[in-house]
This record gives sequence, C-alpha cells and structure tokens, in this order.
Amino acid sequence: MKTLQYIKTKNLKKYKNLKEECYEANLELPKLGLVLFTFGNVSAVDRKEGVFAIKPSGVPYEKLKVEDIVIMDYDAKVVEGNMRPSSDTKTHALLYKTWDDIGGITHTHSTYAVAWAQAGKNIPIFGTTHADHTHQDIPCAPVLSDEMIQGDYEFETGNQIINVFKERGLSHLEMEMVLLQNHGPFTWGKDAAKSVYNAAVLEEVAKMAQLTLAINPETPRLKETLKNKHFQRKHGKDAYYGQGC
Amino acid sequence: MKTLQYIKTKNLKKYKNLKEECYEANLELPKLGLVLFTFGNVSAVDRKEGVFAIKPSGVPYEKLKVEDIVIMDYDAKVVEGNMRPSSDTKTHALLYKTWDDIGGITHTHSTYAVAWAQAGKNIPIFGTTHADHTHQDIPCAPVLSDEMIQGDYEFETGNQIINVFKERGLSHLEMEMVLLQNHGPFTWGKDAAKSVYNAAVLEEVAKMAQLTLAINPETPRLKETLKNKHFQRKHGKDAYYGQGC
Amino acid sequence: MKTLQYIKTKNLKKYKNLKEECYEANLELPKLGLVLFTFGNVSAVDRKEGVFAIKPSGVPYEKLKVEDIVIMDYDAKVVEGNMRPSSDTKTHALLYKTWDDIGGITHTHSTYAVAWAQAGKNIPIFGTTHADHTHQDIPCAPVLSDEMIQGDYEFETGNQIINVFKERGLSHLEMEMVLLQNHGPFTWGKDAAKSVYNAAVLEEVAKMAQLTLAINPETPRLKETLKNKHFQRKHGKDAYYGQGC
Amino acid sequence: MKTLQYIKTKNLKKYKNLKEECYEANLELPKLGLVLFTFGNVSAVDRKEGVFAIKPSGVPYEKLKVEDIVIMDYDAKVVEGNMRPSSDTKTHALLYKTWDDIGGITHTHSTYAVAWAQAGKNIPIFGTTHADHTHQDIPCAPVLSDEMIQGDYEFETGNQIINVFKERGLSHLEMEMVLLQNHGPFTWGKDAAKSVYNAAVLEEVAKMAQLTLAINPETPRLKETLKNKHFQRKHGKDAYYGQGC
Repeated sequence: MKTLQYIKTKNLKKYKNLKEECYEANLELPKLGLVLFTFGNVSAVDRKEGVFAIKPSGVPYEKLKVEDIVIMDYDAKVVEGNMRPSSDTKTHALLYKTWDDIGGITHTHSTYAVAWAQAGKNIPIFGTTHADHTHQDIPCAPVLSDEMIQGDYEFETGNQIINVFKERGLSHLEMEMVLLQNHGPFTWGKDAAKSVYNAAVLEEVAKMAQLTLAINPETPRLKETLKNKHFQRKHGKDAYYGQGC
Repeated sequence: MKTLQYIKTKNLKKYKNLKEECYEANLELPKLGLVLFTFGNVSAVDRKEGVFAIKPSGVPYEKLKVEDIVIMDYDAKVVEGNMRPSSDTKTHALLYKTWDDIGGITHTHSTYAVAWAQAGKNIPIFGTTHADHTHQDIPCAPVLSDEMIQGDYEFETGNQIINVFKERGLSHLEMEMVLLQNHGPFTWGKDAAKSVYNAAVLEEVAKMAQLTLAINPETPRLKETLKNKHFQRKHGKDAYYGQGC
Repeated sequence: MKTLQYIKTKNLKKYKNLKEECYEANLELPKLGLVLFTFGNVSAVDRKEGVFAIKPSGVPYEKLKVEDIVIMDYDAKVVEGNMRPSSDTKTHALLYKTWDDIGGITHTHSTYAVAWAQAGKNIPIFGTTHADHTHQDIPCAPVLSDEMIQGDYEFETGNQIINVFKERGLSHLEMEMVLLQNHGPFTWGKDAAKSVYNAAVLEEVAKMAQLTLAINPETPRLKETLKNKHFQRKHGKDAYYGQGC
Repeated sequence: MKTLQYIKTKNLKKYKNLKEECYEANLELPKLGLVLFTFGNVSAVDRKEGVFAIKPSGVPYEKLKVEDIVIMDYDAKVVEGNMRPSSDTKTHALLYKTWDDIGGITHTHSTYAVAWAQAGKNIPIFGTTHADHTHQDIPCAPVLSDEMIQGDYEFETGNQIINVFKERGLSHLEMEMVLLQNHGPFTWGKDAAKSVYNAAVLEEVAKMAQLTLAINPETPRLKETLKNKHFQRKHGKDAYYGQGC
C-alpha cells in the first residue's frame, strides 16, 4: 500500500505543472470573451513525458479545478484522471503526434471565427493586425467527407487540418490557426498560453475582416511588401518587436 | 388563527424550493446579457404539485426577491403570491399543460434572436454550434392572426407555438427553442436553468447566423451527416460529450 | 449676513431633491452604456418652482457631483449654480416650456440611435419590443435649415422637434423619443429616470431594427392589431403589464 | 560613485512626471476597450527637455510599470530606459519633430478604425459626433510605396501621415486623427490624455459611420453650416461647450 500510494503521489506531482499550465490557459478563454458556457478547450503538452493535459468534457469554467484536468497520450488514451476528456481530444492528440514542435492547442466557438467557418471562407489578409501574426490568408479547411464524419470523426478532424496544410503548402509554425468549415477555429503555439493568444487574435482579425468587407466589398488583399515587413519585424531573424526574450 | 398561520407557513415551505429555482434562473438572464430592464421572464414547474413559479410582471431584476415569485396553476390561476405574474404567464401555462415533460421556460427579447423574429425567418442551421443543440432550423412561428391577437393573446401565443411544432413535425424535446414572428424567443428544457441555457445558446446561434450571411449570403445549410453526428454525440444514446451525469 | 446665509441655505435646500434626481439619472447613462465621455445629458424639472436641473457642460460622469448640477428656468436663464450648463440646455428649456406635462429629458449620442439619425431615417416599427413603448415609427426630424443652424441653434433644435410632432400628428405622451437628423436622440418622460429608460429602449430598438434589415431588407412593419395590442397591454386603460403602481 | 548615483537620481526625477503621464495614458487604452493584448501605444512629450516618453515594446498593460517607460529624443534615440521602445517609435518621433505644437500621440489597432483603414476609405463626416471633433472626413493615408516599406518603415509611416496632411491641406490642430491604409489609426493632441481621448472618439465615429452606411448606403455628408456650427461651438473663439478651462 505504501508503495502504491508513493507511486500515485509521485505521478500526481509529475503532472502537476502540466495540469496547472492547462488549467490557467483554459481560464483565459472566458476572460477573453472567447467562450459561451463550455464551448472551448485548451490542452498543453509535455514532450519529455509524451503526454498532454486537456480540459474535461462539459465542465463549466467557473467550476473547473486543477485536479479535473485529464492527462492523455498521443493516441488519445487516458494516462491519468477520473473525468472524461474533452470530446475533441482525438483532434488534439493527432496534432501533437504529427506536429512535434507545438506545445499547446486551443479550440473555441468564438463568434466571428465561427461565422467565417460557417461561411466556408478563408479569412483574407487585409491588414497589419493580421500580418503581424501570419502573412497568408487564414485557411478554412473544407467540411469533412461523409466517410470521415461517420468514421472516427474527431481523429479525422485532425487529419483534415493536417491535409489542408500539406495541400496548400502551409507551415504550421508560420500559420498557427485554422478554421474547420461549418465548425470553428483551432489554434496552436509553443505553449498553451500562446495557443489561447492566437485564438483571441484570430477572433479579432475575423471581426475586422467582416467589417472591412461591410465597408468595402471590393477590398483587395494587403500587398506583398507590407505582408512581409510586418511578419518579419515580429518573427524574422532581425525582429525588433517586443523585448527579445 | 394558529391553524391558518400553520397552513400558510406550510405552503410557503412547500413552494420554497420551486421559488428559489425560479428566482435563481431569472437572475441568470441579466448576467448572460439576455435582457434589458425587465424584458424577460423564467418559470419553473413542480409536476407533483401541478404548479409553476414565475417572475412577477415589471419587477427589475436587481430588486427581485424570492418571495416575489408567483405560484400559478396550468390554467394560469394564481395559487400563491401577492404580486401580478408576468404578462406572458398564459403562454407558459399552456406550454406546461400541453408538454408535460418540460420543467422550465424562458422568454427574452435578446437582440439577435429578436432580429430574426422581426425578419420573420427561421434560423438556418449553418454549423456545429447549432447542431450541438438541435439538428434542424430554429423555427419562426408566423405572426398570430388578428383573431388570435384580439382574443386571448398570450394564451394564443402558446397555441401558435404548439401548432407550429405539430404542423412542421418538430419534437419539443429535440428542439427546445422557437421564435415568435415580430416578437422574440421562447425556450424550454428539463428545468428552469436549462431553459435559460437554451436562451443563451439561441442568442449566440442567432448572432453567428446573421454574421455568416453577412460574409456569404449564399451559405448553404450544414449537411445531413454532420448535423446528425454533432447532435448524436451530445444527445444520442451513445453520447460522449460531458461527464454523463 | 445671517439673512443672506439663511436665504442661500434655504435655496440650496429647495433644489436639493431636484439636483439629486438629476444627478442620479445622469449617472445611469454610463452604466447603461449610452455615453462615451461627456456625450450626453439629463435634466429633471420641478413644475411648482418652474425650474429644471441639468448637467453642467463637459464634466466627466466620474467627476460629477450633486452640487455641480445647474438650476435653470424655462427661458434657459441660470437660477442657481456656478457652472456652465449643458450646451444643449436651450433645447431642454423649450421642450419643458412647450410640453408642460413632461418631467425629464435625456440627450445622448448612443451608437445605433445616432446611426439611424445620420442615415436620416425613421426607425420602422418591426416588433413588440418597439410596440411595448410606442406604436409608431420613431420619427427622425429633418436636419435644421441653414437659418436655424446659424440662428439660435439649440433653441431651434427644440423647435424642430416640436414642429415635427405637430406636422406628423404625433403625441409627445405616446411617443417619448425622437431622432434629430445628423445629430442623435432626445427622449423624455414623466421624470428624469423615465427619460433615461427611454434612451436605453431607443438604443436597443435601433440596434434590433438595423439587424432586422441586415437579415431581411424587405421586412414589413408590424401589423396594426399587434401594434395596438402591445401598446395597450402596457399603456392602455386596461393595462396588465407591471404591478400597476 | 556618489556623483553618478546623484546624476542618475536627478535624471530619474527629471523624467518622473513625463513617465507618469505616459504610463497613465497607456493604461486608459485597455479601459476604453481600444486594445487587445499589446496592440497599441501612447507617448507624451516634454518640449522643454526635447524628449518624449513611450511605452516599451510588447509589454502587456497589466504588467506595465512607470519605470518601464522609455525616454527618447526626436531622432528616436534612447535617452533613458532599459527596455526596447515601441516598434512604432520612429513614427512618433517624426510627428513630434515636425509638428512642434502637439503633446501626445496614440496608436491603436481598435476594431472599427482598423476596418476603415483596411477598406482604404476616409471616414465620411455624417453627423455632429464627428463634427464636434473635426469638420472634415477623417483622412485615410494611402498604403506606403514598396520603397518606403522596404526602407525605414516606421519613419516613412510618419512621413506618409505628414505628406497626406500637406497634400490635402489639412491642419493637424483641427484634425487630430488619421488612418494608415491597411494598418490602423494614429491620433494626437495637446497632451497624451487628449490623444487617447481622440483615439476613443475615432473608434466610436468609425463604428457609427459603418452602421450609418449599413442602414442607408446613400447617406450624404453633413452639410456645411452644421459642420461649422458644431466644430465652432466646441473649438471656435466663441466656444461655449465645457467649462472654458
């Protein structure tokens, strides 16, 4: 008994930081106005341990506790935790498995991002707010085929994202966001907090793009030089935005 | 006198929980941004006692007290309470009487739901946020005939809702929301809290649908397979969303 | 000196309640999201004394004190107060002078009401939220003539409102709100609080109407029977909305 | 050592008020809902010392401290401070150098102002909310040429603003705001607080103008007499808005 208790305690301790990172990032979603009720989830990965932490399904943010966070492996098997993980867990798992250099993933149903996803349109790059974060249109992955939907749906959702990035020659390190047609956004980043940051940026850029077209339906995209300038000053090798840390 | 006092105290106690459920649910409306001033009301039913509790008419939410809640029977007669019940009480009463498996009803004038009601349009199912809650368009019941309006108006409002569900073959357990043309939304559910939840979901889905059409006026509806997938994963017999409790 | 002090104290006391009514009503404007910075003002009248209290010009709401409120007569002469009254004071004065049965006036630049005013359009009556408060389109008074603008501008603004009500056969007791083309809304009521209430209702109705047209540009107006029903159930002689007090 | 410490302390003291003015003005941006994350910056100038204070780059508002503020000269050289200044510093510097009668500058990516900038349109003057602050359309400076973008970008951004004012015969004292096409707004004023005030006014006017066109796409501009009246009553030699101090 002592030994079992010891192992259990050790494991709880092992994932403590990961769970806290995941918990804190999840709490940012309601603060940033990105979720109604439980319509969103954030995960955080521990690459050394080969596991990720994710929000339990259907638990309201105001009742969520650190110990509710579920630990999963990249094949979406529960490693630790008593609660059922987010219903979108298999999508997170496949993205972590395929893209081994991302550290956190966020999924929301934020209003304007969903509107673009429902409209089935890529979000055109119209300005520097967009270009500060990525220098291409934000892709809208087409709705899944009937076979994918009736098969392993959440796993296939991850496949759809990855395939769209392959087909369109997009880099998941330069484009940390995607829309799923008829569904909504997924975003990722070097850690959970960055994936939440990207979710908020995406929502803002989506709103700006909708309003831009309302004012001028013929608005052309940003020109190449300005796209590159803004992306490079923030992300290029000679970036001079921020404190360089 | 003692006996009367005893009966009164017993009755007050009998409806205490019901009043509190109704009171708490009503307070959620301003918190969720669904009402301006007194433009909304929630009721909760006690099926054993054959009564429901409803907000008094015109009382501001910040002044509302548990003891202000009025107890009514299914024929909209006051059972207990000193205040005048919501002017929409007869609509609630008829819905409780007709659909004996619902536990709470919410009526609001939330902005986007009203906009669709005023436009006289069903809200088309464009995405999974919608399909997570119901897999059909949200119906807009046509404006009442002049006879209905000049007759027992609030009672006829309930009739109009019930008739539209019959005519269109809708199940009030799978579609827990409706718009009344030129008026606004009614929602219901297994209890008062669920009916408020549905009112918030409806408002969000209404906003997303308006923005979707602003981006792409030709947006098609969600395809059958995806409608069914999302509704079933949350509500079907093998549902895996939430904690299963 | 004693006598002067006595008179001064008596006067301060005389207008104390009126100033407080005006002060409290003004503070509701930022709470209700109806003003940016100082873009609004509320006044309250004392019919016995023949004076009204109004917000001083350009004073931020968070710095406003009861004693800053200025007391004016119906010819817009200062009766008491050290600060300059709202630049819109002459409009308030003329409305009080002409319509001797109103008790408070509110002017804001609330966003959606201003949008309709700038578009130069009456707000069409599309639903019961509107009909609960008035059963006609909310009038937009045409922009003032050059002579009026270059003359006694704020006085003429009041004249324009009154003339539009005369020309269109509107009753200022049944229609407690107006838009001034290219400017914004004025609302009034039995007291200052009611005029603020009407300012919030107008903003909400203006937003709903804009969204209604966005969804269905061909939306017809509410039919006569429903207009009358909703207005009468709240304002008619057999009104049954509210607690009847 | 004592002497060095003395000089350092003296300098810190010298810029203390300027840094505080800059700090306080920056904190207004999130309060007014004008920034997401770090998407904005405010500077304040000390004309006697020939320096200005500006927000450090990429520091979140909730972590910002007075001592983080960076002191710069008009050629965008750091005078004091350990942090990297805002990436937009050279734009601020050139505006201070060229327009020696402005005291503060604000740059944001506020939603509606950006939408107009992305649409590449001047904001038409539709009403008195606009005319109370400036009596012309709010100019949208065309996107920079490729040479300007690939050259000293932020410096050229300042040049573009100044050139547009020259070419269009605009006075930077009567028009304290500009949009940069595909980017967003810059505003200025007699001090940092006034430049923030102008940023909030611009955002509100931008929103009102978008909604105005949504209601009536053929809305004409405000007529001359009304433009002049509102601007003069607030800013002319016989202005009677505010408390005259």
